[in-house]
Amino acid sequence: MTDQTCIPGTTDARIPICELKSGQAVEGPYCCSDKIAATDRNGKAYLRLKLRDASGEVAAIHFDPSDDALGITVGDVVIVGGTFSVHPQYGAQVQVRRLRAADPDEYAACDLVPVSPIGPAELAERLHVLVDSVEEPHVRALLERALDGTREPGATFAVAPAAVRNHHAYRHGLLEHSLIVAEAAAGVASRFASVDYDLVVAGGILHDVGKTLAYTSDGMAPQMTDAGRLHGEIVMGHDMVRELIDEDPDFPPDLALRLRHIIVSHHGMREKGSPVVPQTREAVIVHYCDDMTARIGAIDDAEASAPAGDRWTSRIFMIDAPAYVGVREETADDEE
Amino acid sequence: MTDQTCIPGTTDARIPICELKSGQAVEGPYCCSDKIAATDRNGKAYLRLKLRDASGEVAAIHFDPSDDALGITVGDVVIVGGTFSVHPQYGAQVQVRRLRAADPDEYAACDLVPVSPIGPAELAERLHVLVDSVEEPHVRALLERALDGTREPGATFAVAPAAVRNHHAYRHGLLEHSLIVAEAAAGVASRFASVDYDLVVAGGILHDVGKTLAYTSDGMAPQMTDAGRLHGEIVMGHDMVRELIDEDPDFPPDLALRLRHIIVSHHGMREKGSPVVPQTREAVIVHYCDDMTARIGAIDDAEASAPAGDRWTSRIFMIDAPAYVGVREETADDEE
Amino acid sequence: MTDQTCIPGTTDARIPICELKSGQAVEGPYCCSDKIAATDRNGKAYLRLKLRDASGEVAAIHFDPSDDALGITVGDVVIVGGTFSVHPQYGAQVQVRRLRAADPDEYAACDLVPVSPIGPAELAERLHVLVDSVEEPHVRALLERALDGTREPGATFAVAPAAVRNHHAYRHGLLEHSLIVAEAAAGVASRFASVDYDLVVAGGILHDVGKTLAYTSDGMAPQMTDAGRLHGEIVMGHDMVRELIDEDPDFPPDLALRLRHIIVSHHGMREKGSPVVPQTREAVIVHYCDDMTARIGAIDDAEASAPAGDRWTSRIFMIDAPAYVGVREETADDEE
Amino acid sequence: MTDQTCIPGTTDARIPICELKSGQAVEGPYCCSDKIAATDRNGKAYLRLKLRDASGEVAAIHFDPSDDALGITVGDVVIVGGTFSVHPQYGAQVQVRRLRAADPDEYAACDLVPVSPIGPAELAERLHVLVDSVEEPHVRALLERALDGTREPGATFAVAPAAVRNHHAYRHGLLEHSLIVAEAAAGVASRFASVDYDLVVAGGILHDVGKTLAYTSDGMAPQMTDAGRLHGEIVMGHDMVRELIDEDPDFPPDLALRLRHIIVSHHGMREKGSPVVPQTREAVIVHYCDDMTARIGAIDDAEASAPAGDRWTSRIFMIDAPAYVGVREETADDEE
Amino acid sequence: MTDQTCIPGTTDARIPICELKSGQAVEGPYCCSDKIAATDRNGKAYLRLKLRDASGEVAAIHFDPSDDALGITVGDVVIVGGTFSVHPQYGAQVQVRRLRAADPDEYAACDLVPVSPIGPAELAERLHVLVDSVEEPHVRALLERALDGTREPGATFAVAPAAVRNHHAYRHGLLEHSLIVAEAAAGVASRFASVDYDLVVAGGILHDVGKTLAYTSDGMAPQMTDAGRLHGEIVMGHDMVRELIDEDPDFPPDLALRLRHIIVSHHGMREKGSPVVPQTREAVIVHYCDDMTARIGAIDDAEASAPAGDRWTSRIFMIDAPAYVGVREETADDEE
Amino acid sequence: MTDQTCIPGTTDARIPICELKSGQAVEGPYCCSDKIAATDRNGKAYLRLKLRDASGEVAAIHFDPSDDALGITVGDVVIVGGTFSVHPQYGAQVQVRRLRAADPDEYAACDLVPVSPIGPAELAERLHVLVDSVEEPHVRALLERALDGTREPGATFAVAPAAVRNHHAYRHGLLEHSLIVAEAAAGVASRFASVDYDLVVAGGILHDVGKTLAYTSDGMAPQMTDAGRLHGEIVMGHDMVRELIDEDPDFPPDLALRLRHIIVSHHGMREKGSPVVPQTREAVIVHYCDDMTARIGAIDDAEASAPAGDRWTSRIFMIDAPAYVGVREETADDEE
Repeated sequence: MTDQTCIPGTTDARIPICELKSGQAVEGPYCCSDKIAATDRNGKAYLRLKLRDASGEVAAIHFDPSDDALGITVGDVVIVGGTFSVHPQYGAQVQVRRLRAADPDEYAACDLVPVSPIGPAELAERLHVLVDSVEEPHVRALLERALDGTREPGATFAVAPAAVRNHHAYRHGLLEHSLIVAEAAAGVASRFASVDYDLVVAGGILHDVGKTLAYTSDGMAPQMTDAGRLHGEIVMGHDMVRELIDEDPDFPPDLALRLRHIIVSHHGMREKGSPVVPQTREAVIVHYCDDMTARIGAIDDAEASAPAGDRWTSRIFMIDAPAYVGVREETADDEE
Repeated sequence: MTDQTCIPGTTDARIPICELKSGQAVEGPYCCSDKIAATDRNGKAYLRLKLRDASGEVAAIHFDPSDDALGITVGDVVIVGGTFSVHPQYGAQVQVRRLRAADPDEYAACDLVPVSPIGPAELAERLHVLVDSVEEPHVRALLERALDGTREPGATFAVAPAAVRNHHAYRHGLLEHSLIVAEAAAGVASRFASVDYDLVVAGGILHDVGKTLAYTSDGMAPQMTDAGRLHGEIVMGHDMVRELIDEDPDFPPDLALRLRHIIVSHHGMREKGSPVVPQTREAVIVHYCDDMTARIGAIDDAEASAPAGDRWTSRIFMIDAPAYVGVREETADDEE
Repeated sequence: MTDQTCIPGTTDARIPICELKSGQAVEGPYCCSDKIAATDRNGKAYLRLKLRDASGEVAAIHFDPSDDALGITVGDVVIVGGTFSVHPQYGAQVQVRRLRAADPDEYAACDLVPVSPIGPAELAERLHVLVDSVEEPHVRALLERALDGTREPGATFAVAPAAVRNHHAYRHGLLEHSLIVAEAAAGVASRFASVDYDLVVAGGILHDVGKTLAYTSDGMAPQMTDAGRLHGEIVMGHDMVRELIDEDPDFPPDLALRLRHIIVSHHGMREKGSPVVPQTREAVIVHYCDDMTARIGAIDDAEASAPAGDRWTSRIFMIDAPAYVGVREETADDEE
Repeated sequence: MTDQTCIPGTTDARIPICELKSGQAVEGPYCCSDKIAATDRNGKAYLRLKLRDASGEVAAIHFDPSDDALGITVGDVVIVGGTFSVHPQYGAQVQVRRLRAADPDEYAACDLVPVSPIGPAELAERLHVLVDSVEEPHVRALLERALDGTREPGATFAVAPAAVRNHHAYRHGLLEHSLIVAEAAAGVASRFASVDYDLVVAGGILHDVGKTLAYTSDGMAPQMTDAGRLHGEIVMGHDMVRELIDEDPDFPPDLALRLRHIIVSHHGMREKGSPVVPQTREAVIVHYCDDMTARIGAIDDAEASAPAGDRWTSRIFMIDAPAYVGVREETADDEE
Repeated sequence: MTDQTCIPGTTDARIPICELKSGQAVEGPYCCSDKIAATDRNGKAYLRLKLRDASGEVAAIHFDPSDDALGITVGDVVIVGGTFSVHPQYGAQVQVRRLRAADPDEYAACDLVPVSPIGPAELAERLHVLVDSVEEPHVRALLERALDGTREPGATFAVAPAAVRNHHAYRHGLLEHSLIVAEAAAGVASRFASVDYDLVVAGGILHDVGKTLAYTSDGMAPQMTDAGRLHGEIVMGHDMVRELIDEDPDFPPDLALRLRHIIVSHHGMREKGSPVVPQTREAVIVHYCDDMTARIGAIDDAEASAPAGDRWTSRIFMIDAPAYVGVREETADDEE
Repeated sequence: MTDQTCIPGTTDARIPICELKSGQAVEGPYCCSDKIAATDRNGKAYLRLKLRDASGEVAAIHFDPSDDALGITVGDVVIVGGTFSVHPQYGAQVQVRRLRAADPDEYAACDLVPVSPIGPAELAERLHVLVDSVEEPHVRALLERALDGTREPGATFAVAPAAVRNHHAYRHGLLEHSLIVAEAAAGVASRFASVDYDLVVAGGILHDVGKTLAYTSDGMAPQMTDAGRLHGEIVMGHDMVRELIDEDPDFPPDLALRLRHIIVSHHGMREKGSPVVPQTREAVIVHYCDDMTARIGAIDDAEASAPAGDRWTSRIFMIDAPAYVGVREETADDEE
């Protein structure tokens, strides 16, 4: 699956989920993003599913599934045949008649999973600029090892999602999120003489690196791994950064102590899952920029999905309130 | 008290508190920063005091005080005559023999209260640059009205402290704190297309403007005013910004709504005293930059007062832990 | 809409919602209390609505809405034609065939919105008695200005709801709630020599005055206003009381400080949205009587809607439990 | 110890603690309110004590104590001989030369423990009026049994303190506190048709009856009993009320359920020690009036001990802030 | 209802609920575990029910109920005639045609309610062993009185459920839970020389004895009683243990104090409903073993209801997370 | 420092701190457990110290310290010459005249630091029994590697303290604490068929292994290390267990996942520093036994330091209350 060169829409002629109309036939590859097996009145199995492509998600029901169909798991790509309909009371649903696991050459990943709104080239370029701004040679070399796409964690870091659902739950999402945090943190760090800029950049880029193992990223629908749930992404991220540091026997011990501290403390408080609170200026900055940019991103997302003209988004979990987006520019001239 | 032109050390020849040695005579003006009246075994009144100058603070005891001495209040400047001594068990203390209220021409404020480490000229220049970066004409005009030193709140804003004790509890402290928050917030805002930069700058500069009335700033030792304690700085700051907005009948209503929201929500949550949580991107940024820069400043202060060579500061209230400052530059070459 | 003289049931011959039977025709004015626009299987818009009159609320569905129907907003009064039915699984619903905005002369507000169970005349009389019991002339004059129905906030105060939903979410609800709080607080205040009775009465009446701007009260279905959500009713109420005080240049400063404090602190703690906690006896009393009477009212409401004979109400949010109402009087003779 | 007839100051000619001057001799009975046994440099025991009379409390030190002196316990009355002095740094202290347990005829309780500011006669009369206002015969009879001074809990209820320290920590304190709560609760109850007035009065009077066993009240210095610490006053109070109810086989079961509920729930929430939250209107009222009147009393106390002219009291634990008492009447004429 | 001798499946030939297939006739006794009365479109009453037997629970709907059917209450046993069906969207349901209260000889309790997985004989034997291990004669005699099946609380204790729903919500559940807690606590107690083993065993067995009155246990579906909701099981349990102690005038007071403390404190903290925290080693052990074994039991239950092969259970309320049960033994050989 | 063979009291003839009398000479080795450098009235440095041996701790003051004395750090062993005295007001203190760092052959560690009340031989034997009870060969081999005294972490684990202060803050304390937790957990695990006994034993022994790096254990006074403060003992312990597992390429992956989970989750909740909550039965047991045995140990310690005859200990931090220890055995016969 050569991700970088996947060109959306070239592999099949499916109608994107977001454009389906009631009564249309559904044919082609979809990611199975949820699956519940149930039994009907005659004791026969049937499946309630969710199907996803890059444009959205839709419920589906499949009676008389084959053994192949029964064996699929969440995150698999499946070839579906059926019909889409909308019931006024119960909503949109695909009646599936045929369903089987897809072969790798039957779909293009870029058609099935949402991607970062910032293109891979721009992400790579902006990341390069940031890494280039780091002067301390050991820290810079560490970043280069960490981001090396020919090994781990770099290979996964380039494509992993940043969450299981909602914000940044898409391919490249982790890279995008880490970049935004690191850029904001770099902007703040550069204004304070007492702050180690290089450490802030390294901490900003690597703070969530544990997610490369805490989430599945090879499938289509990110899930938490067993280790992610039982050990936690913070412990896993710290392990990975420690190993990256240990590859360089000359890495300055004081910097190692501080960089590992940024990873462990970046959730900001124990209630949020960090075993220790931020105790250095650099850890304070990475924690706050992580939280702050996540909230800005959540408002951006909520605004994008709010009906045009609404002054308020729906309730945002992170903010514990709807966000006010007010009278937006294109309509401001006419209406106010 | 022409503050801008006060040249430290020119008005009197006092030994700064931080340089006093046991047995030395104490003569000259000090700020009375604490006063407890008590009665001795014979029913006569005596005073336990704290005296402060720009270099530090010292305990004092005054037996047989005159009526004039008994009548001074915290924040007054007093002319003291006495002797300094250090008792190994009970610490440093001035034995006061004479004490009276000072006349305004007997002292220079800059000798008695700590000032911002950033000079007034630099503060003014950096503030000017920030205001200059605001493009929306109504917002910019509002800032100019707010900062106008010939009226309120600008006149007090230029000299007020940002806290009653600890960080920024000194002359110009509010201006310094507001500037640092606004600069950091501007740095973040400029990276997000969806954020209104002008509002962020205005909110950053004005978020704590209520402190001009919530703290006393004309005396030497900042205290909370009755209104500050009974109504709260947030309510007071909102009132002031609303009045500043109302002076401009053409101020855009949507911007007014948003700017007032930044003031009311800037403590980030109700438990911290904001009646509403930040519900706009701009309010999120000002809140986080306020919290983040306060923590960086607290670590800077704690490091400054830690003994040379210590890797850890004393416990910092805001962080609920000591901060790690590690092996610092001047010693790093030799010891590591 | 001359509220005082609206006589229920005189304007139209509608069957009240609470008396509708399955199969009956629905004709006449209703308040639209909820509206969701959706798209059916053929891409055509339809509306899910809630309709309300003074007797209750009912779900409705409207296929093929006109542009006029699509344009209505929550709180509008609409003229509806359709049929009522009850489905055993999915409940009661009006099938709407026609729907348009009503003209002001087509309905009487008193038919469409619930009103206080205490009549306007009794509310006015009891309020008069309370105000009359205030002796301090400036406080009394302030109350008279505040309650003057020919200006704000008095005009809105007389008709505003006290909540968006549930208890006191009806016309006159704010007046009724404020009266009950003030009466209970006056009863407590009169037993304590150290308490300023006049301030307690004034604080009790005005504590929620901010709701006159924080909620819409001219429409039929109260909503929070943008300012209510972004600035909070406490900040708004304090502003209004400050302005009322400022109209009287001789208002005693100490009383002004205390009265404004009651408004700001009446939620009792910061977690509940008061930036400062009650720090005077008078603020303590108003806060506790607000909370206590709200809980009693919530139990009254829950008991009223519980099936006859039930010893327990359904769960009450404010109390975090059902309430025990026990064996009630009319049945006690027979059954126990 | 016939409490009712104790006339302060008639039994001995001691100088009250609050009037002692440095150098005066101390002779006579005092209550020992604290006792720490220590060992001096030569291995000999000495005692650090606190001595209390109705006017206040003072520290004391006693070298070379007799075995009798060593054996006294907190709450004992002791005959002290010694000298009072005030050290400017370490405060007031009695140097005790002789100390022994007092005989019962050597002191009058009313000289040694603070009493309620409301006299016993007034307390009794107001309690009588309240009980008299109860119409339900079983509830009224229960109150008469409970308050019967010839048996328990009535005998102890009449003299017990309401707390170990601070507010109402004096003889009659429980009766005074219970009366104030019941009166305030009765005032609120009488305004609500849906509230059972008789239950509120009974609950108000009896809510803290468990303190008759949870605190010691026969000695001079109230302490928590072992049972009070291990079982809690709420459980003990519920037990006592249940037994009082069980004495009347015709007590209505529904009223019994509700009255016991008031006792168990009167702390208002589980975090404050009530295993269940108030789930009836009557329990809501008793809980709120308990909390509200305690706060008013705490402000009264803090104001009484604040220096004349101070606008703020010292910090009040219950309120988590100082209280504002403002410009008080006697000085208002002159100064404002 | 002679519980001990009830032999499942002998009284009627019903198909157990867990084995019903769509279309099968339903005939025989069921426990009514939920009942909601509603009104259809023609104003006629109908019932939504839940029916339960020892094997499971199923929804039911009953149109045209007789007066007898309308009068049943939750916990009654009813004789049902109808048809079972499964709708793919809305699930399994019994269409009830006939429904009436059952006579006592028409059903066997053991067919209708779940029972402890540990048989009554084993429960009794293990309880006997535990009681037998208690050496202190008064404590042992107390346990024998408490568990005496010919009186209360023993008679109810033998059959009561330990919860209204979920874990141990079945006949004998309280006995099973109490036994498991006491055995675990005994295991811990026996390792610590400073712990009173006998008290721990007694506290472990009796900690939840209040549930014999706080829950109904004679019916089929456990409910909280009014007293259980208004006074709480802790207060009720303490009352019962105190009365059991009082039957023995020679019961050692110190042990009485400690045993009652275990009951009152066993929820571990006030937020969980214990008015006092555990303040003895014995109370600490009983509290922790209660919490710990409840969590183990909750994971056991969740694993039992998870699909075979799942590595994770569904979310467990007590643990605030799903539990990991991993690769289980029967499949471990093949797959790992 | 051959710890196993250190025989207390053989190396020097010092009077143990707990037996010092006022006026006695102090000569010999002590551990410096606290050190504050200060400056006297003449600008000369002096030292406030705490000195500790196995029997207790005492304050000390040292004027005119040599450069050698100034350079000692907390945890060093020092040779002290001086005089002990007790001041009735300010307590016991050593006036130090000479102080220098000790040579390793000048003291025996066992004289200077408290040790476990259980002897090393018994600790080793009981640990051996526990390890021997583990049947799964990989888990057992892991424990043997972990406890191997010829390498890490075993070498440090055998001597490390379990805390910086209070309970188990002594040599062998970690081993003792881990053993007690593992024994209690084994006792519970053996009663539940669904629990993996071997994992519980391994988790109980290793749960705190991170403390071998998080605390200093080679010196005399345990301190947290920089890494302990910045990364946390949980993260460090997880790292160590992961490395021990990785030494065995055949270690079953499912057991590895579960064992690492026990380490990470053993604080029980995120607020207490565990990034994930216990999600397996084994982790639940280790967490609860850790907490439970810590509380029992804290009560044991508090009872040991309470004056004979006291029924209550002083307040115990962990329990947030004093503990009731009641009438203890030796006195029970006489007094009750």
